[in-house]
Amino acid sequence: MVQGLSADSSSYSFTPLVVLELASDTKQEATAWLLSRIRDRQQNGGAELLVEQLGPGAGAQEKENPNMFLVGATWQRLLTGAEDVGLFKEFNDGSMRGFTCANKHNFKDFKGYGDSFLSMAECQYIIKHELDTLRAKDETHVPGHTQAKLYPGKSIIRRLQSKGILIQVFPLHDKEELKRLSFSWYKKVKFSFQPLDDIRHYYGEGQALYFGFLEYFTFALVPMALIGVPYYLFDWEDYDKYVVFAVFNLVWCTVILELWKRCSTSLAYIWGTLSRKKAFEEPRPGFHGVLGFNPVTGREEPLYPNTKRQLRIYLVSLPFVLLCIYLSLYVMMIYFLMEGWALSVHDEEPTFWTGILLFIPSVIYAVVIEIMNLVYRYVAEFLTEWENHRLESSYQNHLVLKVLVFNFFNCFASLFYIAFVMQDMVLLRQSLATLLITSQILNQVMEAFLPYWLQRRRNKKMMRNVQKRRAVEDVELALAEQVRLEADMSMYLGTFDDYLELFLLFGYVSLFSCVYPLAAVLVVLNNITEVYSDAFKMCHVFKRPFSDPAANIGVWQLAFEAMSVIAVVTNCSLIGMSSQVKAYFPDSELQLILWTVAIEHGLLAFKFILTFLIPDVPKHIQINLARLEFESLEALKKKKMLEASELSERMQ
Amino acid sequence: MVQGLSADSSSYSFTPLVVLELASDTKQEATAWLLSRIRDRQQNGGAELLVEQLGPGAGAQEKENPNMFLVGATWQRLLTGAEDVGLFKEFNDGSMRGFTCANKHNFKDFKGYGDSFLSMAECQYIIKHELDTLRAKDETHVPGHTQAKLYPGKSIIRRLQSKGILIQVFPLHDKEELKRLSFSWYKKVKFSFQPLDDIRHYYGEGQALYFGFLEYFTFALVPMALIGVPYYLFDWEDYDKYVVFAVFNLVWCTVILELWKRCSTSLAYIWGTLSRKKAFEEPRPGFHGVLGFNPVTGREEPLYPNTKRQLRIYLVSLPFVLLCIYLSLYVMMIYFLMEGWALSVHDEEPTFWTGILLFIPSVIYAVVIEIMNLVYRYVAEFLTEWENHRLESSYQNHLVLKVLVFNFFNCFASLFYIAFVMQDMVLLRQSLATLLITSQILNQVMEAFLPYWLQRRRNKKMMRNVQKRRAVEDVELALAEQVRLEADMSMYLGTFDDYLELFLLFGYVSLFSCVYPLAAVLVVLNNITEVYSDAFKMCHVFKRPFSDPAANIGVWQLAFEAMSVIAVVTNCSLIGMSSQVKAYFPDSELQLILWTVAIEHGLLAFKFILTFLIPDVPKHIQINLARLEFESLEALKKKKMLEASELSERMQ
Repeated sequence: MVQGLSADSSSYSFTPLVVLELASDTKQEATAWLLSRIRDRQQNGGAELLVEQLGPGAGAQEKENPNMFLVGATWQRLLTGAEDVGLFKEFNDGSMRGFTCANKHNFKDFKGYGDSFLSMAECQYIIKHELDTLRAKDETHVPGHTQAKLYPGKSIIRRLQSKGILIQVFPLHDKEELKRLSFSWYKKVKFSFQPLDDIRHYYGEGQALYFGFLEYFTFALVPMALIGVPYYLFDWEDYDKYVVFAVFNLVWCTVILELWKRCSTSLAYIWGTLSRKKAFEEPRPGFHGVLGFNPVTGREEPLYPNTKRQLRIYLVSLPFVLLCIYLSLYVMMIYFLMEGWALSVHDEEPTFWTGILLFIPSVIYAVVIEIMNLVYRYVAEFLTEWENHRLESSYQNHLVLKVLVFNFFNCFASLFYIAFVMQDMVLLRQSLATLLITSQILNQVMEAFLPYWLQRRRNKKMMRNVQKRRAVEDVELALAEQVRLEADMSMYLGTFDDYLELFLLFGYVSLFSCVYPLAAVLVVLNNITEVYSDAFKMCHVFKRPFSDPAANIGVWQLAFEAMSVIAVVTNCSLIGMSSQVKAYFPDSELQLILWTVAIEHGLLAFKFILTFLIPDVPKHIQINLARLEFESLEALKKKKMLEASELSERMQ
Repeated sequence: MVQGLSADSSSYSFTPLVVLELASDTKQEATAWLLSRIRDRQQNGGAELLVEQLGPGAGAQEKENPNMFLVGATWQRLLTGAEDVGLFKEFNDGSMRGFTCANKHNFKDFKGYGDSFLSMAECQYIIKHELDTLRAKDETHVPGHTQAKLYPGKSIIRRLQSKGILIQVFPLHDKEELKRLSFSWYKKVKFSFQPLDDIRHYYGEGQALYFGFLEYFTFALVPMALIGVPYYLFDWEDYDKYVVFAVFNLVWCTVILELWKRCSTSLAYIWGTLSRKKAFEEPRPGFHGVLGFNPVTGREEPLYPNTKRQLRIYLVSLPFVLLCIYLSLYVMMIYFLMEGWALSVHDEEPTFWTGILLFIPSVIYAVVIEIMNLVYRYVAEFLTEWENHRLESSYQNHLVLKVLVFNFFNCFASLFYIAFVMQDMVLLRQSLATLLITSQILNQVMEAFLPYWLQRRRNKKMMRNVQKRRAVEDVELALAEQVRLEADMSMYLGTFDDYLELFLLFGYVSLFSCVYPLAAVLVVLNNITEVYSDAFKMCHVFKRPFSDPAANIGVWQLAFEAMSVIAVVTNCSLIGMSSQVKAYFPDSELQLILWTVAIEHGLLAFKFILTFLIPDVPKHIQINLARLEFESLEALKKKKMLEASELSERMQ
């Protein structure tokens, strides 16, 4: 795989894997210093990587950035890098073990020099890691850029990024493999599973887990969809049976989320990310503070007191989020007022124009919701940045939490209002269907077709430029074109929005499943197209992302579980409120409510017990992990015994 | 510390630490074989421990068991054993690290030969571990006992135990240290904390954590007690203020349980059990199955299919537990019927005899509850044994769960019935007070005074025997007497019953706190005496237990948390049911219930968020753990770098 590109670019003595783009106004001495540090040997504190400047492309005459560098590495260097990042690979005995150069020949797929032992994504991940951990020695600033301060141990790449000298670092696509992958993934119409292993091979574990979850979620919804259809077709108003349907839904939601944990553990085990130890996390580029000594590493780095951050979170961010939620609820109330007003106008004197007037509040509300979501997203990013989190992971968690809570209110508040304040089931069903269908259509357009169209236009312009100037095609130029083309592609911003979309869809299915059993069917249909559009987007619209060695879907698991708890509450209340159930308790509404509450508590308790009863890690993986641990303990013991007997022999 | 006993027993060349008692009808060849295996060198698969037979005691003429053996070890052997069991000790830099013989001199308290580096409890734990892991080689059975089958790798001690050849293994008390400990612990009246470090030093981490929890729990209840007293004295019927009190209680329960996690982590860190890796667990003595190969260790051992165990659990144990709960509820209903009948008899024609009749149902019910608890406990032990768990830990968890659920129903069912079916708050308050006070008195008597009295009688008899025969006192005989005295003491059965008692008390405080604010006061008083009676019991009534390197209170943390969740539900309903709160909603009871349910859900949500917000591990311990991990990673990296540079130098 690693050799894939170098075949096209025979004039290069190395395989380009990663592109570094420096700002065009970077000082010559800074560039030279950076390159020398990257090329320097590891003993001298360098990264020991190969790096070359990219030749001018076909459009060289124009204002093209000349500061593009291609980074690669020798095969040997990649192997030591694989050990550094703690890559897990399949051992000869079928178990997954941390790769070490010392016993590389005992790993299953290791065959010698330049084979497919490391995937291109892994090589790129290794190079990124090595670049990120390239540290300043005794430089006080970047040569030629006195404003870019350095101190011993500071990551050079992060400082260059935070000062805007390094514009971007991105891994290159592998045209051949991409073609193969996209063919097996979405170009042929088929009823098979997604090629998850190939996706992981090309994009890394984080992406593959997202697509795995998307597929799993789709299949898991199929039983709900199948049961929902007859309910929709035959017993539209028969709530006794809805009780059965809703209970099934609740249990099913819990079970699928628990089973997903097992699935994701299995995948992470096979992919070697389950037992992989996280390397010590570097501070994120935007993190700032007073220079001090990190208590863990003892290295000099900026420190920011945790209490200050907590104050910012609880005194600024939290009130702001609450205010936004209040605003969102306020807007919702205005919408209902407008709707009521439009309805009264139409009822008084129904004309064609008042008929149109009926739709206007919904349209305005939908537009306002979208605008609020967008604005809120920006402010949430700003606030989370301002909270000054030391780690990227904690930044992400706080951002996800903020966005999640607001989106939940923004999207579901009107449904809750209709269901529990207005108690209008017909309107609830209508609104649910409308929201679900329009959000699906909007998403598909915004997510795939729009970027695709933009990308296509850009490509065409570029191609025209190329063809205008040169008809001759040589290999080096092809590479240069590819790099410049990819540098212009949009940046893939992670799986955040994709998961958020799935989360909201899951909400539509689970929260109000008992009034609109067709929701699962719609979501299944949406997910099937989502697989294709996401796959297409990944392959053709965005820059290739660096792979991310995830072992699970992280905070999203928690979010989905929280949603399924809320679903128990809403479904129980909906059932309790239905007139059909009320008919069972003709004399006292009190009895009805007490029963509803009791059943709800029972279901919640059952849910938690179920969560405990289903083990998160499948038995065979538990055994494998236990065996590895046992073997390492035994090996240690044997080593000690040997040392002891050697000692005693020497003493005799 | 280790030297403590050997000072008394100068005729022994070693310090006796652990006593092995074999059945008196054990064959001579079996004894000889066992002793040789224990004494054999480790390279030959022995335990390399010192072992001597105990001389006859003062009462040797009587039917005294001659097969008592004292086990000890050399100082060097204890150190290698400490490494085997993975003991954590304080390093020179103040952090806790796994002890290794190789860099023993870098540990803080290590001063050379025979110092107090290892406590006596640790030495005894090491010896127990080494005895437990003494494995059969190619013996097919214990010599002289053909029914005691062996296979390669089978733990010899466990087989001897399961066949009744080995009657007991127990560690010896250290008279001197015990005197010192009991003085600082409970003999002087003081207002200081318990000497937790000394308790841990003498009894090990499991015991110390129990006493730590007991103390913590007592102190944590003090604010509730202080707030409860004025409520009891001044506003007995004023429920508005009870709402505030109950909400405070609920939040407080959550907070104290979360803070306890932090406390217990801190203690476990200082005591070195937090990061300690659990050794591979051996099957428990009673475990049986078809001989096969363990998938983890590859060793031959009995295997029992998990599905069979699951079937036994779900098809036999679970229905049995449910049946028992049903029975307990049935008995409760009979009690209420009897009570009603007695009341009606008394009301019709009140005489002195009918006045006494009023008490009879309560007495009968209390006796029946106690009998049911006892019978159930035996059956639960039998059933859990029959479920054939491979590990002692999983056996314990299943037993705890069974006993916990039944005890919960048996103790609280009548209170629930009074509260929610009869809705009689005055009766609830009375019953709660009666139950709480009587159970406290009963417990103190059953737990401490009864065993103490029995033990005292036994001791006196023994002493009389001794004095009758011999007036001369020599050191060896003193030891022999001590060993035989301790062998006759009752076995300490672990902290199970102590935790169960605390759990039920916590239930009385939290479940119905808003009707009886004095409960916290009573529990605080009870806990103070409990500390003394438990301490006395540990020091004078029971055999010394082997220390148990626990890092937390295990399944009990979960049990207490579950109780605090149930407490939210009960308290909210009690408040909702009170006539004072009902007065706020004069027109509609519906509104009242909806509000109650809403507030209850809000409180539950708040509880879960609080659980998330309070980190389980204090910051400074997180940093310490992260630093250790970081250092080991860096050391590994440096080692590799060194190897690489050596390699490249050699190649040049």
